[in-house]
Amino acid sequence: MPRGSAPARRVTIVDVARHAGVSTTAVSKVLRNAYGASPDMRIKVRSAIEELGYRPSAAARGMRGQTYTIGVTLPDFRNPFFADILDGVTAALDGTDYVQMLARCCNDEVAEARVHDAMIDRSMDGLILIAPTGSRKHLERIARAVPTVVVGRHGEATGYDTVADDDFTGAELVVEHLAALGHQRIAHIEHLETNPVRLREMPNAIRSAGYRHAMQAHDLGTFIDIESTSYSREGGYLGARRLLARDPRPTAIFAGADIVAMGVLDALTEAGLSVPGDISLAGYDNTMFAAFAPISLTTVDQAGHHIGSEATRLLLDRIAHRDRPTAQVKLSPALVTRRTTAPIDATV
Amino acid sequence: MPRGSAPARRVTIVDVARHAGVSTTAVSKVLRNAYGASPDMRIKVRSAIEELGYRPSAAARGMRGQTYTIGVTLPDFRNPFFADILDGVTAALDGTDYVQMLARCCNDEVAEARVHDAMIDRSMDGLILIAPTGSRKHLERIARAVPTVVVGRHGEATGYDTVADDDFTGAELVVEHLAALGHQRIAHIEHLETNPVRLREMPNAIRSAGYRHAMQAHDLGTFIDIESTSYSREGGYLGARRLLARDPRPTAIFAGADIVAMGVLDALTEAGLSVPGDISLAGYDNTMFAAFAPISLTTVDQAGHHIGSEATRLLLDRIAHRDRPTAQVKLSPALVTRRTTAPIDATV
Repeated sequence: MPRGSAPARRVTIVDVARHAGVSTTAVSKVLRNAYGASPDMRIKVRSAIEELGYRPSAAARGMRGQTYTIGVTLPDFRNPFFADILDGVTAALDGTDYVQMLARCCNDEVAEARVHDAMIDRSMDGLILIAPTGSRKHLERIARAVPTVVVGRHGEATGYDTVADDDFTGAELVVEHLAALGHQRIAHIEHLETNPVRLREMPNAIRSAGYRHAMQAHDLGTFIDIESTSYSREGGYLGARRLLARDPRPTAIFAGADIVAMGVLDALTEAGLSVPGDISLAGYDNTMFAAFAPISLTTVDQAGHHIGSEATRLLLDRIAHRDRPTAQVKLSPALVTRRTTAPIDATV
Repeated sequence: MPRGSAPARRVTIVDVARHAGVSTTAVSKVLRNAYGASPDMRIKVRSAIEELGYRPSAAARGMRGQTYTIGVTLPDFRNPFFADILDGVTAALDGTDYVQMLARCCNDEVAEARVHDAMIDRSMDGLILIAPTGSRKHLERIARAVPTVVVGRHGEATGYDTVADDDFTGAELVVEHLAALGHQRIAHIEHLETNPVRLREMPNAIRSAGYRHAMQAHDLGTFIDIESTSYSREGGYLGARRLLARDPRPTAIFAGADIVAMGVLDALTEAGLSVPGDISLAGYDNTMFAAFAPISLTTVDQAGHHIGSEATRLLLDRIAHRDRPTAQVKLSPALVTRRTTAPIDATV
């Protein structure tokens, strides 16, 4: 068949392998950007792909049932922290032939399970579940159906890999920082959690536990003061309104997430209070909002980009080696001090 | 087969129809949440679905090749305006059996086309393309392959429906407002566009044209001053830095999008300038960031939620009636004045 004439049937991975003079396994390796593909082989395979006009994403379905699609689920699109994780996923998939498809999950386990099932029904090659709320049994069922990496859940897992920030330490860092500035009435706004499993496994619950532990450790146990709302701007607003009604009111607020701190700032502005003049404020996540100059929020950096790329690396590896032992990656957070926290002496 | 025993084969739409005592067309209508399904029929079908444990998303594939999946592409996950649109899509899909799958597109036409193709390859029933950058020819090719609604593009379209805000009027509203406050040196930060088709069709280019037209209409033609960067926080920062270097500097900045205004605020804070004391600032999109109390940004509301739900309604309708004439929906924007704009007399 002369070059340039369109082939009547779709180009397959076998055609690419023949054209490049390599094995189909080698082509597959290059497509997955896996280790063990030499630069020379990459060039050969890439050239063959280009010359033949091969579209791996679709054609590859025939081979081992792969769709070259990674499904990513996340709780919401308003929390800028998730955009950091997605950037990490995108970066890790760059140079591979995988496409990521996203779906928003929900705080409701039934609706969440429906989204997970929808991903499986649509033949995703692997899933990255960001902060899922479902039971461990449910997650294990998903992981039996398809290679899965869970982001943000703590606790022992069987069947799936996990990547999480050390939320306990992160919360301790915030309390330590505020205590060192002389604050005692340090309040916390958490995401309400009542399910016993989630209380052990969800990042929000772990942060809350870290806050309580650090308050005790700094002899501030009597000042422990928690408002349970939600990790959202509305949750921050509501929690802050309640905290400001206290007499005396807290001199510092530790918001469980940057998006919560945003709502706290709404409430403080409404009440005519200044930060840190009247009250110190710290968040968690170090999102792009925290670095926003007019705000300049003290927060905990849990390296969202790195979490996303690490999760993706683990997932691609598991797709290639479904039987390897599961990996539990825990990342160390770092405190980023900015302008919203100040010594108690400076507080009016 | 006694109730309660698991059927060995998958439940199909035919089983549901038989169990409910209605036609498969009726079941399909209920699944699509289409008009013409009576409340009574909905109850019958829903009960049958529940009793049989029917999973339409997967099983429906056999029927007319539907996957009950809507693909949504958007340029980025950091611009909060897109979250508003996605909320509208979600709301419109609520009560149907459709799942939305998202993918991030790119500013690069080739990469964007790859994402669109990936959606088609994965058998989406329909696509909602938010602010795509590809040529009209490309969009028409996509629309021939699958029902498509394009959000944010202007100009005549054949083969696909469009939903767009009247960006020209929106930009005029901003200039009118600032001119009425006595401002003359009103600068604009736009998203750089050089392609002639995109200059006619992209919302950013239309806003820029609206700015120029309104400046002329208010006898401020000699004060037209545009910085071309990008609709991103970095673009706003860079544009503002350049504008602040002017002598005399502008007394007001019209940022083409709220996310751009965020970057402008970074630059103003860095320069030690206050808003609106030293300089007035307006954005576009009325995102949740604009309503953030410490900022309180004057902006243009283009009703992202409504855009999303309208686009979804059109798409579901087109999936059901592929031959109906295309619809071009243009929505009217409204100015929302907040605290970042003030009379020129109040400007230092």
